[in-house]
Amino acid sequence: LWQRLGQQTKNGKTCSQCWVLFGMNSALPLLCVVVSPAAERLRYILGDEDDAPTPTLFTEMDTLQHEGGELEWRESARWVKFEEKVEEGGERWSKPHVSTLSLHSLFELRTCLQTGSILLDLEGYSLPQIVDEVVERQVEDGLLAPELREKVVFVLLRKHRHQTKKPIHRSLADIGKSSSTSECLSVCVSTYHSQSRSMNDISDAPSTDQLKNKFMKKIPRDAEASNVLVGEVDFLEKPFVAFVRLAQATTLGGLTEVPVPTRFLFVLLGPQGKSKSYNEIGRAIATLMVDDLFSDVAYKARDREDLIAGIDEFLDEVIVLPPGEWDPKIRIEPPKKVPSADMRKSVFSLNELGQMNGTAGGGGGSTRTEGESLDGRFCGGLFLDIKRKLPWLLSDFYDAFHIQSISAVLFIYLGCITNAITFGGLLGDATDNYQGVMESFLGTALAGVVFCCFGGQPLIILINAQPDNGVIDYMELRLWIGLHSCFQCLVLVATDASYIIKYITRFTEEGFSSLISFIFISDAIKKMAGSFKYYPINRGYNPDYVTMYKCDCQAPTQESLSDLPVVSTDGSKLNGTALDWSQLSKKECLKYGGSLVGNSCKYVPDLALMSFILFFGTYSMTITLKKFKFSRYFPTKLRKLISDFSIFMSIMTFVGLDMLMGLQTPKLIVPTEFKPTRSGRGWIVKPFGKNPWWMYLASFVPALLVTILIFMDQQISAVIVNRKENKLKKGCGYHLDLFWVGILMATCSFLGLPWYVAATVISIAHIDSLKMESESSAPGEQPQFLGVREQRLTGILVFVLTGVSIFLAPVLQFIPMPVLYGVFLYMGVASLGGIQFWDRIKLFLMPLKHQPDFTYLRHVPLRKVHLFTLVQIICLAVLWILKSTVAAIVFPVMILGLMVVRKMLDLVFSQHDLAWLDDILPEKDKKKKEDEKKKKDRKKSKGQDDDSNEEVRKMSLCTLIHVERIVYSCYYGHSANTTQ
Amino acid sequence: LWQRLGQQTKNGKTCSQCWVLFGMNSALPLLCVVVSPAAERLRYILGDEDDAPTPTLFTEMDTLQHEGGELEWRESARWVKFEEKVEEGGERWSKPHVSTLSLHSLFELRTCLQTGSILLDLEGYSLPQIVDEVVERQVEDGLLAPELREKVVFVLLRKHRHQTKKPIHRSLADIGKSSSTSECLSVCVSTYHSQSRSMNDISDAPSTDQLKNKFMKKIPRDAEASNVLVGEVDFLEKPFVAFVRLAQATTLGGLTEVPVPTRFLFVLLGPQGKSKSYNEIGRAIATLMVDDLFSDVAYKARDREDLIAGIDEFLDEVIVLPPGEWDPKIRIEPPKKVPSADMRKSVFSLNELGQMNGTAGGGGGSTRTEGESLDGRFCGGLFLDIKRKLPWLLSDFYDAFHIQSISAVLFIYLGCITNAITFGGLLGDATDNYQGVMESFLGTALAGVVFCCFGGQPLIILINAQPDNGVIDYMELRLWIGLHSCFQCLVLVATDASYIIKYITRFTEEGFSSLISFIFISDAIKKMAGSFKYYPINRGYNPDYVTMYKCDCQAPTQESLSDLPVVSTDGSKLNGTALDWSQLSKKECLKYGGSLVGNSCKYVPDLALMSFILFFGTYSMTITLKKFKFSRYFPTKLRKLISDFSIFMSIMTFVGLDMLMGLQTPKLIVPTEFKPTRSGRGWIVKPFGKNPWWMYLASFVPALLVTILIFMDQQISAVIVNRKENKLKKGCGYHLDLFWVGILMATCSFLGLPWYVAATVISIAHIDSLKMESESSAPGEQPQFLGVREQRLTGILVFVLTGVSIFLAPVLQFIPMPVLYGVFLYMGVASLGGIQFWDRIKLFLMPLKHQPDFTYLRHVPLRKVHLFTLVQIICLAVLWILKSTVAAIVFPVMILGLMVVRKMLDLVFSQHDLAWLDDILPEKDKKKKEDEKKKKDRKKSKGQDDDSNEEVRKMSLCTLIHVERIVYSCYYGHSANTTQ
Repeated sequence: LWQRLGQQTKNGKTCSQCWVLFGMNSALPLLCVVVSPAAERLRYILGDEDDAPTPTLFTEMDTLQHEGGELEWRESARWVKFEEKVEEGGERWSKPHVSTLSLHSLFELRTCLQTGSILLDLEGYSLPQIVDEVVERQVEDGLLAPELREKVVFVLLRKHRHQTKKPIHRSLADIGKSSSTSECLSVCVSTYHSQSRSMNDISDAPSTDQLKNKFMKKIPRDAEASNVLVGEVDFLEKPFVAFVRLAQATTLGGLTEVPVPTRFLFVLLGPQGKSKSYNEIGRAIATLMVDDLFSDVAYKARDREDLIAGIDEFLDEVIVLPPGEWDPKIRIEPPKKVPSADMRKSVFSLNELGQMNGTAGGGGGSTRTEGESLDGRFCGGLFLDIKRKLPWLLSDFYDAFHIQSISAVLFIYLGCITNAITFGGLLGDATDNYQGVMESFLGTALAGVVFCCFGGQPLIILINAQPDNGVIDYMELRLWIGLHSCFQCLVLVATDASYIIKYITRFTEEGFSSLISFIFISDAIKKMAGSFKYYPINRGYNPDYVTMYKCDCQAPTQESLSDLPVVSTDGSKLNGTALDWSQLSKKECLKYGGSLVGNSCKYVPDLALMSFILFFGTYSMTITLKKFKFSRYFPTKLRKLISDFSIFMSIMTFVGLDMLMGLQTPKLIVPTEFKPTRSGRGWIVKPFGKNPWWMYLASFVPALLVTILIFMDQQISAVIVNRKENKLKKGCGYHLDLFWVGILMATCSFLGLPWYVAATVISIAHIDSLKMESESSAPGEQPQFLGVREQRLTGILVFVLTGVSIFLAPVLQFIPMPVLYGVFLYMGVASLGGIQFWDRIKLFLMPLKHQPDFTYLRHVPLRKVHLFTLVQIICLAVLWILKSTVAAIVFPVMILGLMVVRKMLDLVFSQHDLAWLDDILPEKDKKKKEDEKKKKDRKKSKGQDDDSNEEVRKMSLCTLIHVERIVYSCYYGHSANTTQ
Repeated sequence: LWQRLGQQTKNGKTCSQCWVLFGMNSALPLLCVVVSPAAERLRYILGDEDDAPTPTLFTEMDTLQHEGGELEWRESARWVKFEEKVEEGGERWSKPHVSTLSLHSLFELRTCLQTGSILLDLEGYSLPQIVDEVVERQVEDGLLAPELREKVVFVLLRKHRHQTKKPIHRSLADIGKSSSTSECLSVCVSTYHSQSRSMNDISDAPSTDQLKNKFMKKIPRDAEASNVLVGEVDFLEKPFVAFVRLAQATTLGGLTEVPVPTRFLFVLLGPQGKSKSYNEIGRAIATLMVDDLFSDVAYKARDREDLIAGIDEFLDEVIVLPPGEWDPKIRIEPPKKVPSADMRKSVFSLNELGQMNGTAGGGGGSTRTEGESLDGRFCGGLFLDIKRKLPWLLSDFYDAFHIQSISAVLFIYLGCITNAITFGGLLGDATDNYQGVMESFLGTALAGVVFCCFGGQPLIILINAQPDNGVIDYMELRLWIGLHSCFQCLVLVATDASYIIKYITRFTEEGFSSLISFIFISDAIKKMAGSFKYYPINRGYNPDYVTMYKCDCQAPTQESLSDLPVVSTDGSKLNGTALDWSQLSKKECLKYGGSLVGNSCKYVPDLALMSFILFFGTYSMTITLKKFKFSRYFPTKLRKLISDFSIFMSIMTFVGLDMLMGLQTPKLIVPTEFKPTRSGRGWIVKPFGKNPWWMYLASFVPALLVTILIFMDQQISAVIVNRKENKLKKGCGYHLDLFWVGILMATCSFLGLPWYVAATVISIAHIDSLKMESESSAPGEQPQFLGVREQRLTGILVFVLTGVSIFLAPVLQFIPMPVLYGVFLYMGVASLGGIQFWDRIKLFLMPLKHQPDFTYLRHVPLRKVHLFTLVQIICLAVLWILKSTVAAIVFPVMILGLMVVRKMLDLVFSQHDLAWLDDILPEKDKKKKEDEKKKKDRKKSKGQDDDSNEEVRKMSLCTLIHVERIVYSCYYGHSANTTQ
């Protein structure tokens, strides 16, 4: 069989992807591009790039069945992109799967096309007419005996039963009998021509079944159908094969299950006994028809040879699984991503060759600083930012209309007010109530609304900057620091200092965000642990000694009573003895100077444990529901809804549980009146009067520290939000962001509110809750992450809600704090997910053979990966220690330190390794160019993996140089247009 | 290229699996078996079935590298069964994956073998000698210019660097430079012959690296190696190809990474510029060498043509993935199971043909009643059971020596004592302490030890039969019932009544075990909920009013005092007024007639919530740890250990937490003294004296009910344990089991202990904790479930431990009951897993397209599956209601009802559907034979899936009749030997 094939390979071969044919006997070194006749044919018909793209093909395969003495065509499989098979029993579609073919069937199909009738651009308007023409052609060509003509036509015009039709409802007793019907094959076949039935079971108009078919929405609008009909009949002695392309796509009655016009028709009728073989051939042609390249060929083929050339190209590219290592019965799930057919096509369009090779491997291209150019002019960056964001302004609002936004708003809102309350409480203590919960709420609302309305990246959520322990005692001094800081920010904006973000590589970014996540997690746990302190459990409690547990309020002795400043609530002097001490509550008792005596005084039952249950329950339920998207239960949409609203549902559940238990767990109490926390002060802080004049200038120095903190916090968070993995489409606006942060700083200082800066974890949570996925189009195609619902509305709503929380107090007071701490824990843990650093830490615990197939592991030796991770861990540990000791004040400077460490890593790791593990730092002149080249190389190899083919490299060299020039001009901003 | 191929297919084809070649132009209907020359060749060399099986091949592929100016062979991939590739950077093995080849490389390889030198059965003792002979042959054949001889030999004798060798430790600073070394290719190659180096880098003895290689344990003992060497050199103008088979496998120095003797050698050296192509050819031959069939061919080939025929057969069987639906870069994970090559081989050994076809598809064969034959003789079944079990007696003990057994013993022990305690408590209440916790412990120990020592299926765990509310008030009456019941059991044994189990199909079995699981789960939850009743939470508690909560003991008023029978512990009459009432504990207060006054009296703080945390924590931690086996962290063995000991670790953790909290949660208190619970009675119950004589006879009637319960409980549990999915090897012993249950019944009745019967859920847990998996042999092969560690020791130990629990009281008292309820919950939930019924219930919640690919779903219409499930659910609901109402007494009869329902399903469902969803009931004569046939058909189609090929069916017909005869004789026991 294969005997002469080997020799044939010598003659010449389609040279796709520059594979070199291996001419064993010829002593000549073969040239790279050896063009076989087949390849030349394809190049001729596919080379013309100006052609409109061909429509998508929907392929349906029907097989001839003999049900209850009647012949009919029954749908047995269909393809949009992947194969769906009708399962045995005919009541079920299989899951979409990759069509695994046998090599046989492909060769047999090739033979079919070589010997059968090929009718291209047939003018067809109805199935009977088409069938007549096909049969006529066969008779003309001597392939079919004229006396069989009628029989073939009769068979081909039997009615088609599609999988959409509900099976005829048989009574339960009938079911048992049906198994025998399949036995009557020979009887049915031999009797069909004696029956006096119409030649034509096919109607012209699409049936209601077709029109109602919901499957239609899975098929692209412009799609056309190709129908494959295979079957065995007893009157033929050799197969009847026809391949028809219609001049115009035509709806041929009930031929197709959906009302899609038919363009191609493949018919294979053969002698009995080989139905399996026919089926496989049918599957082969159907698979070919949905192949991007072959369908192009089928549309453009001029003759039989073009089609054969198409099959040959297909065979050239097939992937072969060895029979001993794979079970053909396994249905292979569609891959997450299939390679684009453009690569294959590009071989045939000569003039595109270079270009295609250069870009095809790109994949995850585009640098993080996309759209970020250094303009030499004053405020150049700011103006560019505004110019970039302005066109999106309208869509920033209407893009928000989606149910997902509601869940995002609720989630982020709860995060924000929890933060505002806990932070406000701390701040109140620290500032002697000059700034408290009220200020915290008001500030959050004000800063948030302004930033979300006008900021460069409205997905960023602003929260209170960490309190600077005791630095800012007086409102006036604080105002001046704020003003200085605002001025410094504006200077940074004007000088385009945000250019520094190019040095914020993955190393810095992930280090910083991990740190913030850890702080979130540790804060949540600390607060939870606090309940155990606040509500101590009586460990030695013995239910039997319930009679012994009491706590009495004892009146103070006379001496101590006289020492105390006795003040009653109504102002009158109280006489200790006049009180019924036993009727006083704990607070009252202490207030009036009584002492609590008894062994249950310092314990509070149940609350600590209940808090723990609420905390942990909320966290675990959120995690579980979030994962529910990947479960098999319920329809996809419902699952997605559950997943989107997981936090809301968990909160509701545990609020409900808390109400059911009726325990006095600590609740979320928001202020209910609009007034400054400290009654003495007004809303506006006056700039002069209380401090000596030099203080106004000296405050420049602490302001500098604040500015660095604000700047780093803001920009790193922005870098994280603008990560290329998030696929943001509306561009970034670092300068604009910083501008507004500066302005808000001054405003807040005047109003005596806290300062606000981007919150890493909550911003990540915001992004996560707004992620969009494609509705899968073809069955089996994996939904793709499309990007984030970029808009301003969710942010604005969150902060408006925060502002009006004062009025929401009656609702909010049902929410126990431990539930919100659970949400915090979830936020911290969730924001660690998807961080490469975190993945790499996990690698330490995995034995080599169980490690996931991360691409960087294929390219960078494990010990270097580990070393890199270790450096990051040490950096984080140092930062953590700094953060929690007195050195907290230098923390922002330390983040700059991260960037210095990263720079030093250049000395230890090769640029190749760093390109995989991190990003390449931009550098000067020639060195920079080299790096760029390497980066491009890496991108290319990321796309093409370890394809180190010399040819491709050479070919893409000119493209590289071109791309490099563009990137260079982007960085140094020679023209503003290129960045648009 | 493929042009002439199509025509070639006409000439004739290897007809494996009876595929019929599709002769398009020939009008002759082709015969099924068309034997091509290639197939005839293979049949000739493979047909001889008496040959010893060929050794397993380990294949290593080395490629020629030019590192730092030196040439060397570097290992680039290896195959035991699946491919492992050396990743870029050379420091890492990829995960084992299926070798995806290109069709090209296979054809190119075919050409190589057609044109290159083939040296079969070469006498080789060292690499240099072999290389010399190969080169000599090439020169002789005119394939190699004589002047190139030395150069080729030089290249082939360069040293081999294997992946085991640690990379030379370079300093960190060096790493950056290394990237440039790969550029020097042309320089190195052109200079190698000018360098004065030894021609031979290869040593003869295996190096220590080889010997120390741990990979050796992944390779079967008798394995031989095949080495593939590919590389490009600049002096050749056409490729140098050689395929060598040595007459004797020989260790060729450092050629192979492991000290495995080399049998095959494939060399491909070619001109420069096509390294990728050479690599692919190398991968192709390597993949072929590990293919079961091709390696046979390679061992037995007589000439070049045999090898070519082998490749052709391989190509015949390959699976093709279309390029548009699959990304060749994806590494395909090895499948769970690959089809055996026997099927392919069987085509070539004519005399085995029929047999192979009949059995190959079997897969999950063997009926549940394997080894269960109905012997006409008195006690025939019992004797057969003993005969079957006796030979295993010794292995029943030494098979237990494995660490897994320890975990199983601990797990089941805790389950048993928890059961004994809770049951004992209930029993004590019900029988007025005639039987209590002590009796429960003692009985469990006695019955368990006896059963595990002598029973037919020692994996079954006996626990107390459910208490029969109030039926057995007097020990004497109970004794008589027990005696009658024992007698009835023995009659059932003697008459081989256990034959009835053949009617216990999956339907009954899963219904019963689900019911028991639900009871377990509901009991666990009920007991947990009980803590909230037992330790009520004070819901309105306000921490501020701590001073108001008290509970005082108030002395009774004088009148009520005089009404009460005042008894002091020391017997003296007590004067109410002499007591300090405020110092009394709750119990004392109530005892002395005081009343508890106060608002905290009826509340117990913390204990309920703590109990809940312990309960839920134990359950979730066990579930989580059990799944840990499938995580990526830590080495496989450690993971398996953690998974095996998950219950133990969870219990320890939560016992620890409980100790840490120091709360008085309810603990496991076992009796510490060996004496009957009721002090009045001795250990032996006397049979006569207390009841009228007719009672001794009348007790026959209640005994009958007890017998039915015992019989059904015992046999269904045994059927579940003996399920074929458990792959038990030592056979079952239904008669023997029942015999001992009967004997124990009488014994326990005499001793006044409760009765014992098989416990479904705990027995399943026992089986689960003793499951064995194969250590995966070839890398990438999935570990297979091998069976259960069948032995008597774990059971015996469990019950011995139960017996000595009296002495373990000091340890056991630390275990809180809620932890044990958590374990119960886990047991109930875990025993639901793997039940098809449960899977089918889940289907209700899944949309069609997300349903898992269960085989029965491919064959049975979904609505019938749902109908079947619904019937089961209704049956269960009815049983549940019966169980929980007064009708509990008829519960055992109702299980018989399940079997009747199943019988009626025969009328509603077709036998085909039932065969997939359930099992076929045995029936009489002809009908039975038909069913058997269908069952076989189904098995066959299970194996071959929807391969409805007529040919195969015909061929296997005679086999079927044969198999049927065997099964028939098994059922009706014409010969005892067949069941052994």
